[in-house]
Amino acid sequence: MTVRIENVGQAVRQTQYAVRGPIVARAQALERQGREIIYCNIGNPQSLGQRPQTWVRQVLALVEYPALLESAAAAFPADAVEAARTVLAGTGGHGVGAYTESKGLLFVRQAIARFIDRRDGIPAGGAGAADPEAIFLSDGASKAGQGVLHLLVSEQGDGILIPTPQYPLYSATITLLGGSQAPYLLDEAHDWRLDRAELERAVAGAKARRITPRAIVVINPGNPTGGVLAERDVEMVLEFARDHDLAVLADEVYQENVYGQGERFVSFASVLGRRGFTDVSLFSFHSVSKGLLGECGHRGGYVECRNVPAEVMAEFVKLQSVALCSNTIGQIVTWLMVTPPPVGGPSRARWEAERREVFETLARRARMVEEGLNAVPGIRCNRVAGAMYAFPQVTLPEGMTDDQYCLQLLEETGICVVPGTGFGQAPGTWHFRTTILPPIDKIEAVVKRIGEFHRKVTAGR
Amino acid sequence: MTVRIENVGQAVRQTQYAVRGPIVARAQALERQGREIIYCNIGNPQSLGQRPQTWVRQVLALVEYPALLESAAAAFPADAVEAARTVLAGTGGHGVGAYTESKGLLFVRQAIARFIDRRDGIPAGGAGAADPEAIFLSDGASKAGQGVLHLLVSEQGDGILIPTPQYPLYSATITLLGGSQAPYLLDEAHDWRLDRAELERAVAGAKARRITPRAIVVINPGNPTGGVLAERDVEMVLEFARDHDLAVLADEVYQENVYGQGERFVSFASVLGRRGFTDVSLFSFHSVSKGLLGECGHRGGYVECRNVPAEVMAEFVKLQSVALCSNTIGQIVTWLMVTPPPVGGPSRARWEAERREVFETLARRARMVEEGLNAVPGIRCNRVAGAMYAFPQVTLPEGMTDDQYCLQLLEETGICVVPGTGFGQAPGTWHFRTTILPPIDKIEAVVKRIGEFHRKVTAGR
Repeated sequence: MTVRIENVGQAVRQTQYAVRGPIVARAQALERQGREIIYCNIGNPQSLGQRPQTWVRQVLALVEYPALLESAAAAFPADAVEAARTVLAGTGGHGVGAYTESKGLLFVRQAIARFIDRRDGIPAGGAGAADPEAIFLSDGASKAGQGVLHLLVSEQGDGILIPTPQYPLYSATITLLGGSQAPYLLDEAHDWRLDRAELERAVAGAKARRITPRAIVVINPGNPTGGVLAERDVEMVLEFARDHDLAVLADEVYQENVYGQGERFVSFASVLGRRGFTDVSLFSFHSVSKGLLGECGHRGGYVECRNVPAEVMAEFVKLQSVALCSNTIGQIVTWLMVTPPPVGGPSRARWEAERREVFETLARRARMVEEGLNAVPGIRCNRVAGAMYAFPQVTLPEGMTDDQYCLQLLEETGICVVPGTGFGQAPGTWHFRTTILPPIDKIEAVVKRIGEFHRKVTAGR
Repeated sequence: MTVRIENVGQAVRQTQYAVRGPIVARAQALERQGREIIYCNIGNPQSLGQRPQTWVRQVLALVEYPALLESAAAAFPADAVEAARTVLAGTGGHGVGAYTESKGLLFVRQAIARFIDRRDGIPAGGAGAADPEAIFLSDGASKAGQGVLHLLVSEQGDGILIPTPQYPLYSATITLLGGSQAPYLLDEAHDWRLDRAELERAVAGAKARRITPRAIVVINPGNPTGGVLAERDVEMVLEFARDHDLAVLADEVYQENVYGQGERFVSFASVLGRRGFTDVSLFSFHSVSKGLLGECGHRGGYVECRNVPAEVMAEFVKLQSVALCSNTIGQIVTWLMVTPPPVGGPSRARWEAERREVFETLARRARMVEEGLNAVPGIRCNRVAGAMYAFPQVTLPEGMTDDQYCLQLLEETGICVVPGTGFGQAPGTWHFRTTILPPIDKIEAVVKRIGEFHRKVTAGR
């Protein structure tokens, strides 16, 4: 063979991505042998029965095949027809089969800017308003995150502060780019609190290793933790970033997934604007894959930039342009995410009901998972205040790792979760990540079986 | 600002991608000022009036909004309804809103394998048959190409042989990955012939610079050249790759775009199989963006691997998995590209007629561009035997570069083409690349205006 594994670069070979790692491969092998597997390894709502939003899919059908606007208009509500016409006009009449601008379709970026202003209570066009030219559409938020890291990381001395535990997109991409991780610990004893002293320790630790911290990644609501930051935390991170000359990557893809009583999502962009951090560069990410849509397969997402010099944004455009543009349907799903059906229109009530149903069952499942796991001696789970996951700490028998625990759980119960190692955890602690996504009737069984398994494993040694 | 241009890595900053470079930016600025621009810079058929295939769009509408299968079945031919049901079943019932396997949906990869065998005349499942597990779906072929290069290039000493002229995806990606280009010249005097002696020269040149050649990129049909390789050329490249321990990257995205009399597309996979090159690693790329579909916006494509060790393919899966999977709609457009409506079914005649129309007008436009340009003194254009471009050589007045020529052409005529510099050209020669995609009524004017402009520029100095 003229391609050999030993010629594949170290960075690629060292990269790890546990969410689709060996345990998931084993689950797929068992499934092929006929075992029933419950996939709790990945936030993929529609694979576990969540239904797509009617509003989104009606408009997509019409823009894919505009002849329906004539031949089957009766099968669609008038506001969906109207929205489809708006989309088709927004493509310059080219439809969804043409490459778009590298940044993505302008009318989509404009709608996102209005959405951000509305969400953050900023008068459109006023001070602190979002700029459509600083928004870049991408094939899911992951690609946007990888693109931004590509701007920041080019050598081992480039460090990125990432939480522990974190979503492994960040560790994997930093490794691929040849940079260095500078991990900071979230405080598990205080509901995964973010603490400035710990951030300072992470910066000092990086510098001691001759690493220059370039940016800090914050995931809010937290993946895998389920934590939700308060406004004062967001402000603290921005102050910290200013003081240490760091860019901020705000992974806000779970912004609609806040279930905790009294909790609410506060965007980094809003605090940056309100508190006047005019010198801190901010990249905020959002996605159609999570929230109440769960349109993972459509690969839609964006990054919004603030306080990023034009020359740097031009480099980002160039990076995007090498593969031309993100997929148009993902772009349009993003438009639909930020463009609800009009109030009083024929689609509105159904849209609201579908959203409410998804939200309520997610909130209920978050509680069921949290309470069910906490009822098991030796499992301790923080509040699942947001996102789609629980990250419980498990007390394991001497000599057992979380990898072994999760593999055995899979073999014995068919439940596929991801070991804490894949996300990072405080030394001497073990965890796993499970999604809260199986349907209500199954999630009860999942929690029960995990509990039985845990009791058996810990009693048996 | 906490992000600054001087901290962006050299590899990113040095990367160039002329197809969307400064001349295109200038064209967009002129357009905003009200000028009519004819975009001949990019192979984007549906932006220039090519209509999508009905078969493709009907099935996509149904899979996006499966309620239409009940509510509006009468608006669709029975075979499109059937195909939509096949697709939905192929997603495991999850529909298009769920993440797929990192490689892409299995039923799509199976259909691609059957398509390759059919195209290459190989009995399905027999020796040399394509393996669905060695096929990776991607957001357009560009992403697949970047992924494969990521496996091959990790440092300056890793060299990739690329043609001159080439499609700048390759040069850009090699630069981004920190590797080295090892250019080989296509012989313009002999219709862009590929010559073994020149390939040997390129390898020797690379080695003299302490670069280890890892792979050779071949674009067939050629972009930007329009050349089509004969079977003996393909065989020669495989022999050359075997002799020098190189992988082969076969960019075959224009495989359906062969217009020349007596020319036909011969895939690298077919020759590799027939001639028994069991040791040469081959990566073959295809896309929904070109051919007769022109579905650029949907970002669908794939790479098929032959003679690639399982460990290396596992690294590719891992790279893909970090951003989860390619977009499902692009995957399904790929399935539709390789799955025609059944013979005798209600969609077949229309499908054939639409394909024929696209093919015939492309072939006619290829001739018009070639002949029209060759009629201008000082412009010499090889045969446009395939693909979607002409790459004529222009004799310029002393002191004028092709960048200046193309910019002036844009300013004076509104025609946007890309300078030869963006693709590479023999020293001392100047070229530009134009697509053959403007509609028949416009392309005549394009060629005429280029001719007038050229006469003026060359007479005026």
